[in-house]
Amino acid sequence: MPIILKELADFCSARIEGGDPTATIESAAEITSAHQGQVTQLTNSRYARHIKGSTASACFIAEGFGVENVPEGMALLVCSDPELSFIKAVELLHPARTYDRQIATQAVLGANVTLGNKLYIGPYAVIGEDSNLGDGSEIHAGAYIGSNVKIGQNCRIHPYAVIYDDVVVGNNVIIHSGAIIGADGFGYKFRNNQHVKVPQVGNVVIEDNVEIGANTCIDRGALGSTSIGAGSKIDNLVQIGHNNKVGKHVIMCGLTGVSGSCNIEDYAILAGSSGIADHVTIGSGAVVMARSGVAGDVKAGMQVFGSPAKDKKTAYKEQIAISKLPELLKRVKMLEEKIQILEKEA
Amino acid sequence: MPIILKELADFCSARIEGGDPTATIESAAEITSAHQGQVTQLTNSRYARHIKGSTASACFIAEGFGVENVPEGMALLVCSDPELSFIKAVELLHPARTYDRQIATQAVLGANVTLGNKLYIGPYAVIGEDSNLGDGSEIHAGAYIGSNVKIGQNCRIHPYAVIYDDVVVGNNVIIHSGAIIGADGFGYKFRNNQHVKVPQVGNVVIEDNVEIGANTCIDRGALGSTSIGAGSKIDNLVQIGHNNKVGKHVIMCGLTGVSGSCNIEDYAILAGSSGIADHVTIGSGAVVMARSGVAGDVKAGMQVFGSPAKDKKTAYKEQIAISKLPELLKRVKMLEEKIQILEKEA
Amino acid sequence: MPIILKELADFCSARIEGGDPTATIESAAEITSAHQGQVTQLTNSRYARHIKGSTASACFIAEGFGVENVPEGMALLVCSDPELSFIKAVELLHPARTYDRQIATQAVLGANVTLGNKLYIGPYAVIGEDSNLGDGSEIHAGAYIGSNVKIGQNCRIHPYAVIYDDVVVGNNVIIHSGAIIGADGFGYKFRNNQHVKVPQVGNVVIEDNVEIGANTCIDRGALGSTSIGAGSKIDNLVQIGHNNKVGKHVIMCGLTGVSGSCNIEDYAILAGSSGIADHVTIGSGAVVMARSGVAGDVKAGMQVFGSPAKDKKTAYKEQIAISKLPELLKRVKMLEEKIQILEKEA
Repeated sequence: MPIILKELADFCSARIEGGDPTATIESAAEITSAHQGQVTQLTNSRYARHIKGSTASACFIAEGFGVENVPEGMALLVCSDPELSFIKAVELLHPARTYDRQIATQAVLGANVTLGNKLYIGPYAVIGEDSNLGDGSEIHAGAYIGSNVKIGQNCRIHPYAVIYDDVVVGNNVIIHSGAIIGADGFGYKFRNNQHVKVPQVGNVVIEDNVEIGANTCIDRGALGSTSIGAGSKIDNLVQIGHNNKVGKHVIMCGLTGVSGSCNIEDYAILAGSSGIADHVTIGSGAVVMARSGVAGDVKAGMQVFGSPAKDKKTAYKEQIAISKLPELLKRVKMLEEKIQILEKEA
Repeated sequence: MPIILKELADFCSARIEGGDPTATIESAAEITSAHQGQVTQLTNSRYARHIKGSTASACFIAEGFGVENVPEGMALLVCSDPELSFIKAVELLHPARTYDRQIATQAVLGANVTLGNKLYIGPYAVIGEDSNLGDGSEIHAGAYIGSNVKIGQNCRIHPYAVIYDDVVVGNNVIIHSGAIIGADGFGYKFRNNQHVKVPQVGNVVIEDNVEIGANTCIDRGALGSTSIGAGSKIDNLVQIGHNNKVGKHVIMCGLTGVSGSCNIEDYAILAGSSGIADHVTIGSGAVVMARSGVAGDVKAGMQVFGSPAKDKKTAYKEQIAISKLPELLKRVKMLEEKIQILEKEA
Repeated sequence: MPIILKELADFCSARIEGGDPTATIESAAEITSAHQGQVTQLTNSRYARHIKGSTASACFIAEGFGVENVPEGMALLVCSDPELSFIKAVELLHPARTYDRQIATQAVLGANVTLGNKLYIGPYAVIGEDSNLGDGSEIHAGAYIGSNVKIGQNCRIHPYAVIYDDVVVGNNVIIHSGAIIGADGFGYKFRNNQHVKVPQVGNVVIEDNVEIGANTCIDRGALGSTSIGAGSKIDNLVQIGHNNKVGKHVIMCGLTGVSGSCNIEDYAILAGSSGIADHVTIGSGAVVMARSGVAGDVKAGMQVFGSPAKDKKTAYKEQIAISKLPELLKRVKMLEEKIQILEKEA
């Protein structure tokens, strides 16, 4: 969706310096590859060297961001928050595909389903009985919505996402393909040399503005709910066990696992491939660094690293000490020899 | 499915002490949230403090379990195994949804499929040719059963689980959504600077009473079978490579990976995010603790931790030693200085 | 598909020594289980002891590979590359199922789809508008192909694989069930205490001869492409984030995660459950060992281990040193005592 540079600048609240305000902008690209007809951004001085040879037609840049060697043909789009302005530009230039507001004839709707307005339901989608879909939501091809599920407004459920019975989803929630919401939690009692299944009769509650990545699993509560707070963003292939309470605006990166009955408080960040044992609280704003394994509570704001995870500073100190350990062994051996000599002399 | 307390107690082999035997119990809940009309359990003394303020109508408790401050309105349900009795109560109060024994018109059945009695086959399920479904099994919406597959009796295959050709599934097996059973193992030979695919023509054999979590993958054998023994329980997002032999009543928690050609013997436990290198034997009843990486055999009954994994005691000792390491570096430095002085003096 | 041994030997470029060249070979098996009517291979001297008691009718073996106690009934199939010859034999004896070249009536094809010759499209497959399927490709039951997708020739897309819009797939590519290609990358900007979604408008480009495992996720680029080079093989449950450039003939084992904007150069190997931080380069032919976490660039040909990952030799030295650490603490304590005595004496 091409646009005249002047209009793009206005739309993104930016001031044009140099370049040709009447140029047509076709698309957006990173500064390392942007060429004529494209708009880019420069927000990190590490990338400033790429501007010199760039043929990009325009570049978002922060008010007061010093930049040299701007090519003659490039317009600077000076603004207060170039990252946000660039997001607006990308959304304008690369609009998301839209889907006709209709219900595919190949969709299967159970008894007593309540349908909002302006829904898109794709072919082979299955909606169980007593479920409720809010206005403007999209249930893409083959997505499975169980019975007694509530989906809010303007949600996008991608193809082959699976939502088990009784799950509650807020508004503006995005669930990617292959995500499984509400499968049974992993609970057994060991009796007579067998694992007896504990019934998993709770549900999952997902608040507004949550995004859930591809092939991520969020198990239903055994009793009560597993919950994901508003604005939290969960990457692909994440495992969230039963009865976890995930707060608002939490970030969980790929391949992370949260066992069960944990509290992951607001604004916590779980980096990639990290893991949390059960019944643990990760305090508000705490950061669990990549590949860390947390077995006990982490205080609000704390950063932890390692497995078992420790305060980041302590963990780093230990890492440095370990790198000196082979040498230390030699030093101690030498000390022992010297002492032996001294002892003989004494 | 509400029930009179007296009947619930009888059904669950419990003796009522106090409370109102004629009260109606509507549902079950954990002791931290249970209120009037609900039944709960108290099996861990750490939670005993919650009983005082609880308005739950009834609480399962073990014969001889000392508890104080029981509210007047609460009936104690005294029994020999309150966890099992509570499971029975939950199953009664929160019965699983049932599905009409019918085959959806939108299901696709291949040639020569053998169908048992009392089957449920959901819309868009696909059953390949020559496959065989046992009595009472449920193949939910969109589940894919390949060709020449055998599914036993009373299985539940959840929506969009995928079972490749030639897989054999026992009785009472639960397979959750997104689980992929029988995809090709990961085997190549490196020739002429390319990876040549080794044909994966074996299958997967799953014995009775196994449960397989959402998005878990179990690869088919290259030749012969990958097998999962009776009663084993596998969590979500677990990777089980080709030709592994998993014994009976094994537990594998989320995000665990087992490379290939391993023997995981009966009653072994692989905790979350653990990993096993190929051709390794994990002995009967051994425990691989969370996030551990095992490269060599683990003896029966042993507990191992860390990556590379070691005997738990050794690993813990090393962890404690590492925490003293930064201090140790300083101590050794001091020793070196002292020795230097002593050497000069000598 | 049984075959006379003599013909099998010719087909696999092997010379028969002993046994019965007119015997019928029914199938292939590993040496530990092969019996009469089966062909096997012996390529690792560790397995040589199994040959004595084997009833296998034939065994591929390398020219000059010394073997004793060959049973009288067993033919040796002597050849230059028994592993490759055995692969040929397995492919002949256990041919892959074939699918009639037809388009299921239950498939949904969007407007303006371009179809090659000799396609198989299974029931409930969905192909979005403007997409293009090359000659001889198989789109199995329920596979989802978005809009403006290009699939090359002779690809096999397994049931319920999901390919988002705009993805480009080369020739001879295998994508297993549950793999999600082209979901949104995980990118947000933090503003006003909320995570603002960065539009993910790039795509994924997969070159020829790639195999992608079950439930693996490859995210689309934010801008530009995430790419997988020709001949690369990716196992199950792997997470490849946005804008990664994966080279040719790369191996990635199960449960591995690559964050984003990384360069994984040709012939690199990422072993199981390893992880790569963002903006990292893994040099050509480098090996990231199992469960390692890489935060910085790895040079070509290097092998790294641990989290944080280090040069393998260094990491192993440190591991050995750690195993001596508890003892070292005692030794240092003893030194301190001795020094104290010496100091008093001095």
